[in-house]
Amino acid sequence: VDTPPSPFRRSEMVRLFAPDAHVQQMLAFEGALARAQAQVGVIPHEAASAITAACASATFDVAALHRDAVSAGTLAIPLVRALTAHVGPAGSAYVHWGATSQDVIDTALMLEMRAGLDLLEHDLHQLAAVSAELAATHRHTVMPGRTLLQQATPITFGLKAARWLSVAVRQIAAVRAQRASGLALQFGGATGTLASLGDRGSAVARVLAEHLDLPLPALPWHGERDRVATIAATLGIVAGSVAKIATDVTLLAQTEVGEVAEAAAPGKGTSSAMPHKRNPVDATGALAAARLCLGSVSVVLSALPQEHERAAGGWQAEWVAVPDVFAFASGVVWHVLGAVTGLEVHADRMRHNLDMDGGVLMAESLSMALAPTTGRTDALLLVRELTARAHTHNQSLRVAAHADPRVRGVLSPEAIDHALDPGSYLGSADAFIDAALASRRALPPSLE
Amino acid sequence: VDTPPSPFRRSEMVRLFAPDAHVQQMLAFEGALARAQAQVGVIPHEAASAITAACASATFDVAALHRDAVSAGTLAIPLVRALTAHVGPAGSAYVHWGATSQDVIDTALMLEMRAGLDLLEHDLHQLAAVSAELAATHRHTVMPGRTLLQQATPITFGLKAARWLSVAVRQIAAVRAQRASGLALQFGGATGTLASLGDRGSAVARVLAEHLDLPLPALPWHGERDRVATIAATLGIVAGSVAKIATDVTLLAQTEVGEVAEAAAPGKGTSSAMPHKRNPVDATGALAAARLCLGSVSVVLSALPQEHERAAGGWQAEWVAVPDVFAFASGVVWHVLGAVTGLEVHADRMRHNLDMDGGVLMAESLSMALAPTTGRTDALLLVRELTARAHTHNQSLRVAAHADPRVRGVLSPEAIDHALDPGSYLGSADAFIDAALASRRALPPSLE
Amino acid sequence: VDTPPSPFRRSEMVRLFAPDAHVQQMLAFEGALARAQAQVGVIPHEAASAITAACASATFDVAALHRDAVSAGTLAIPLVRALTAHVGPAGSAYVHWGATSQDVIDTALMLEMRAGLDLLEHDLHQLAAVSAELAATHRHTVMPGRTLLQQATPITFGLKAARWLSVAVRQIAAVRAQRASGLALQFGGATGTLASLGDRGSAVARVLAEHLDLPLPALPWHGERDRVATIAATLGIVAGSVAKIATDVTLLAQTEVGEVAEAAAPGKGTSSAMPHKRNPVDATGALAAARLCLGSVSVVLSALPQEHERAAGGWQAEWVAVPDVFAFASGVVWHVLGAVTGLEVHADRMRHNLDMDGGVLMAESLSMALAPTTGRTDALLLVRELTARAHTHNQSLRVAAHADPRVRGVLSPEAIDHALDPGSYLGSADAFIDAALASRRALPPSLE
Amino acid sequence: VDTPPSPFRRSEMVRLFAPDAHVQQMLAFEGALARAQAQVGVIPHEAASAITAACASATFDVAALHRDAVSAGTLAIPLVRALTAHVGPAGSAYVHWGATSQDVIDTALMLEMRAGLDLLEHDLHQLAAVSAELAATHRHTVMPGRTLLQQATPITFGLKAARWLSVAVRQIAAVRAQRASGLALQFGGATGTLASLGDRGSAVARVLAEHLDLPLPALPWHGERDRVATIAATLGIVAGSVAKIATDVTLLAQTEVGEVAEAAAPGKGTSSAMPHKRNPVDATGALAAARLCLGSVSVVLSALPQEHERAAGGWQAEWVAVPDVFAFASGVVWHVLGAVTGLEVHADRMRHNLDMDGGVLMAESLSMALAPTTGRTDALLLVRELTARAHTHNQSLRVAAHADPRVRGVLSPEAIDHALDPGSYLGSADAFIDAALASRRALPPSLE
Repeated sequence: VDTPPSPFRRSEMVRLFAPDAHVQQMLAFEGALARAQAQVGVIPHEAASAITAACASATFDVAALHRDAVSAGTLAIPLVRALTAHVGPAGSAYVHWGATSQDVIDTALMLEMRAGLDLLEHDLHQLAAVSAELAATHRHTVMPGRTLLQQATPITFGLKAARWLSVAVRQIAAVRAQRASGLALQFGGATGTLASLGDRGSAVARVLAEHLDLPLPALPWHGERDRVATIAATLGIVAGSVAKIATDVTLLAQTEVGEVAEAAAPGKGTSSAMPHKRNPVDATGALAAARLCLGSVSVVLSALPQEHERAAGGWQAEWVAVPDVFAFASGVVWHVLGAVTGLEVHADRMRHNLDMDGGVLMAESLSMALAPTTGRTDALLLVRELTARAHTHNQSLRVAAHADPRVRGVLSPEAIDHALDPGSYLGSADAFIDAALASRRALPPSLE
Repeated sequence: VDTPPSPFRRSEMVRLFAPDAHVQQMLAFEGALARAQAQVGVIPHEAASAITAACASATFDVAALHRDAVSAGTLAIPLVRALTAHVGPAGSAYVHWGATSQDVIDTALMLEMRAGLDLLEHDLHQLAAVSAELAATHRHTVMPGRTLLQQATPITFGLKAARWLSVAVRQIAAVRAQRASGLALQFGGATGTLASLGDRGSAVARVLAEHLDLPLPALPWHGERDRVATIAATLGIVAGSVAKIATDVTLLAQTEVGEVAEAAAPGKGTSSAMPHKRNPVDATGALAAARLCLGSVSVVLSALPQEHERAAGGWQAEWVAVPDVFAFASGVVWHVLGAVTGLEVHADRMRHNLDMDGGVLMAESLSMALAPTTGRTDALLLVRELTARAHTHNQSLRVAAHADPRVRGVLSPEAIDHALDPGSYLGSADAFIDAALASRRALPPSLE
Repeated sequence: VDTPPSPFRRSEMVRLFAPDAHVQQMLAFEGALARAQAQVGVIPHEAASAITAACASATFDVAALHRDAVSAGTLAIPLVRALTAHVGPAGSAYVHWGATSQDVIDTALMLEMRAGLDLLEHDLHQLAAVSAELAATHRHTVMPGRTLLQQATPITFGLKAARWLSVAVRQIAAVRAQRASGLALQFGGATGTLASLGDRGSAVARVLAEHLDLPLPALPWHGERDRVATIAATLGIVAGSVAKIATDVTLLAQTEVGEVAEAAAPGKGTSSAMPHKRNPVDATGALAAARLCLGSVSVVLSALPQEHERAAGGWQAEWVAVPDVFAFASGVVWHVLGAVTGLEVHADRMRHNLDMDGGVLMAESLSMALAPTTGRTDALLLVRELTARAHTHNQSLRVAAHADPRVRGVLSPEAIDHALDPGSYLGSADAFIDAALASRRALPPSLE
Repeated sequence: VDTPPSPFRRSEMVRLFAPDAHVQQMLAFEGALARAQAQVGVIPHEAASAITAACASATFDVAALHRDAVSAGTLAIPLVRALTAHVGPAGSAYVHWGATSQDVIDTALMLEMRAGLDLLEHDLHQLAAVSAELAATHRHTVMPGRTLLQQATPITFGLKAARWLSVAVRQIAAVRAQRASGLALQFGGATGTLASLGDRGSAVARVLAEHLDLPLPALPWHGERDRVATIAATLGIVAGSVAKIATDVTLLAQTEVGEVAEAAAPGKGTSSAMPHKRNPVDATGALAAARLCLGSVSVVLSALPQEHERAAGGWQAEWVAVPDVFAFASGVVWHVLGAVTGLEVHADRMRHNLDMDGGVLMAESLSMALAPTTGRTDALLLVRELTARAHTHNQSLRVAAHADPRVRGVLSPEAIDHALDPGSYLGSADAFIDAALASRRALPPSLE
């Protein structure tokens, strides 16, 4: 099937949750369940072997299964029916023994999410690597820092990239924490008692969790969805916080700012009518994906207060929303990677922009230089007057400062120039870059 | 392509917004644009003929177009390129003349939404018809009314169905209002000036709107998305308010309530392990679809504050979210239709439930019967005492009322029985059913 | 009580929904109910007079009522109790006769929303007036149009303001439509049958609706919340689409763009440390308010599928969310008014920005000038080559165009200059401004 | 100020984030900053002493400060101005030295959130205690388990309470994890470089973090809001998952189910017109609070992609949304505590409900008893036939089973009765209760 790619979902992530992958993970559950039950003595070993073999060899019509699922209410019902028919006499009586639809669907979802978390972590490591390189390379590339989109005081592009890096590092840690302890086997039977397994339910659950390499929860959680919601929220925060990088890129790439541009590629970001355009296509894609991701996260969160031992509506909505959370979150990281890999950084424009508006960006620096002598309040008032005067006379703050006798009474001409040099007013920028780089190195080795 | 059906999206609605349908609507725009421009004298008639013919005969590789769209940033770029190549020399220079990507994509979306609104209205009419029949049939089927899930005072099932009908009728009106005046042609060129058409932009826009039978807006609206958001919100409200019917069905179908059941169908609502189950599968599907719809609506609404003359992220998110809004809203109506068509209504259980809890549901009625004599406050206190006593002695309110001298002092035995007869305490239920039925008849004739 | 003002809520709107105002509107309902029932003959006229007088003279301890409401479940219960105590013997037995808590609370909400819609419409008219003046004044102020935050082709600031105006005009129409037909009396008694009024329920409802000047619905709507949701969504769209103006202002006010600045005012938008800053405080406030508004809208929409004849949770959430929707939506309009009233428009910076990047913004214009001769495809390729060359050689598109023999072979030097003059490439901008101004004049006279 | 209490916000939590508390926490920052800077040698010790004293003695007009904040853009500006005026000559020049508005506001928010997390954890411990007691007490109280609101197989009320307990235990762990490592000092100066502190920025930050007992982040995080979003999402999940308990209570308290009732209290849950009503007021309040909480969480999450070194709109929206997230999440836990503390559990109704519908709830149990002999598929078919027959003849499954020769051919009468005894079909319910109780005991000692 040659399905059109989705512009905001990461294709490889889509595949991990696709209908056929879902069936495969459900079969993985059914096979592992049979083996666990044989091991504990609940079903015969030959039944388990037959079921395992059938799960491995099954090539069901996935579309037909989904079609039947619409009226059945869950995919488990037609799948178990098809599997039972496929297993043969040695095992057909023991397929899905003791389990309920939600057990197999939730556990399959957990297996898919596990693979999804791994893929996401992989991409985040890429993002951390690219950000770290930008931080190191541009440690001394001075540029305007901006608050409320107004120039405020100078920073370095390295510091900005170090903050991007810090986002990636924290998201890696968050994703990894979910990978390590956020997942859980679902196995409870119809209402979470494992009634049909008598007193061997816990034993089967333990072995089943081992077979599937999933954490064993204290008890089934059909209606208690905080685990799923926590993973979804974690991915929403990955999406939203990584999309901050995309926000920065779109703003820095503005024609009037011109400080960065996404790497050029054939056919990328052109316009149907405007031959000069180089649109920040990947940053835009990331921002769209983040919006979509957060819409799906809200579906999962708002479905939390579920009914009794299995919900009517809230659980089922997860079947669509959770895969979308993963696909779009992954899409954000993927597109941001596309935006920052090979990013063109225009240090000259950054320098140029620092001088814009008469260099008033250095007003705080000048006031700090004056303050030890004049007091901070007077320094602020004096500098505010200077910036206003510079603005009125269309001159630079530097000219205004040198011309002012009160400033000259406090600072030498060299001291004035120093106070107005962006490169001299960067404080702990370097230390912060080092700290961000160190936080990446301090990441524990990958779980894989 | 045998794509698995989605359990919560209405398949026919999915098709209206599918990748190939989107390409067809974009080609409809391009063809109509060429004809409009020829008519106004902007491009040669033979060019328009060539473009029209090419649009009609084009069989592009939709998946490939979408693949190229990912890096291009919009689907319009590869599509215009492919169409230009397909048109031949007579028209290739005039393909997409004066238009921008957003013009063709937004207008195609409008054409898809128009078809989607028609489909949704059609289904809502079905829902209104089924609800009207239930309202008329069960006009005298007395059942408990419930507030905060507690029995309160009696209603009829006909009244409940009349309220469902009133929801459907209002949603039909809302959908129709959007169909009539919520849509709009998008045609503005790169930044909404139609600059490349000189002084003939407005003329072309007018003719183009006629060709596509879309309302002509006062001016282009690339960054002003209130129209799209209003349609999305309208559908979210359709989804949410129609899902109220599904809430009612799941609650009424509870084992302990047992007042309704979805019509039985082979393979519908069974359980993998519990042979007795008859799950309200369609109502559940509607509730899931409503949650998903509202998640997508929130994406569209939160994207409203868009940048300048074309947004970076907010507009693009609509490409996914708007089709989902339609597919899920339509899924809600579709599933609710499945839930209420052929609904089994168990009047006996309703009657049985009215007697539950000693008939205290009639407490208000009794207090109203007493109030003219005792005053309302004393009546409430007396009845509260009676219900407490009945509860303590595990007797019915009827027995307690007949046994109380204060009650007997005010009401004859027949008056007591009358005051405790649910069928005598229905007030304006009938009048309200009539009003709801009349509101359906008063719907203006369909636009189609 | 000197409550701190909220930065993102409009104070006057907060007052319309404040606890004491809510109590007043509830008393307005109770008084009108008594008068309507007397008129229809349900209760004695002297009772109605006593209740009316009590409602007018009541000065309840609003905080105490709200305190009791927490455990009672609704504010109606303590209020009716207090009112009953206040009425005196002539009417106390007839207070709240036949009504339920939800009747008085929902109707009071409708009365508050009516006042809120009027206030909002008033502010939107102000916004339309300011936008219209900006559109007329800056009809010929040429500036860059921007897509995906990249310069695309020229527009005028008047056109941008005309689009702002068109947003305001459409929102006025939307608000007015809700004011005219979105409101409704709520009056159904415990479960929507008006049982305690026997066969006079509809008559009382009709007179009550007249007294309160509210539309009379076909039947009560305790659990069918589409009306409330539609009003909330309408305000969310007001908030989001008007916030688009704030997005534009923050982007245009960027230091590097410098095309507009919010009007200066003492103490407005300064920084604690940076004396040169002039932050777009109102635009920022509008953007924050829009985010908050849409969060509250999502609460209302997601609460739509309510239970039976009165919901447990979904209805109650409206008590907080609906007033917030109004306060924040009004906050958006209020802050945007603050941002655009007296807006400083720097035509010189706009002109300067047009020349930025070598004037490549005029690339489409040049290609359109070439296309009639070279064909559109060749024109685009040629201009793309010119812009690349200009970029490489750090020269303007104008220089590159004049130097290219292929261009010169098609266009005279004057024609080249004309094609590169932003003021010559504005297409229908003027016509669109006229259309927006006309749409404001075409607004029907206010309902008030 | 006698502000009306909010029905869905926890009052004590509201106070932690109230305007005056916010000012106090901001002053705590300013005082600690001065002391840290004196310690590192940035400002004189006497200045730090003067500032500390002023912060301790300050009694500012909080409403006036908030009024000025509206036009200033942040509360920090008027507060710093007022504090500077209050400090006196020894320290006024050093107030807020090197800091930016966002430093003090974000850090104050962190201090408030710390107190809020402690309060929330405290309430969750209460909830765990009540749930644990219910789980232990009702270990053998058999009741119907329900999926999709249909009776499925039996559970015990103890198991249901154990699942509530497991929710509380996991939320305690989640809240505690945020308390331990989710908080962070904010201190970066205007654009996150601490430029005005030269090379002593990191040292001051370290000491300041110690003074405030807040984790020291690797670098400032003005525009990287994942920490705040993670805390907000954690609370949203607390709200949603704890509200699941409220969903269960409202459903179990339905008149027709009658298995639980909220503890009676004077004035609690009565109706204005229906004297018999006992509404689940606290469960309803919890469900409303959860909806409101999740609306505010969505505001915080959707604001993540912030601009540059300080956002325009997204950050400011947190000022309202984060306190609301805490107040509503706390409101959910508070109301659920009100709902389950002293919960009336009606074991007789549970037993009665198990027999409802002819005891078909035991169908799975019967099929499991038959399956070892007949095979699972045949067992399911046979039991489905029996349940259908029982339904048709209005007899119990027990009668139908005893009457069926195929059943009798496999199972003795005693075995049939055993298979149909709910108390015999509880599987691992007891083990799961033990596991939940153990998970509570395994909670690490509180951080406090």
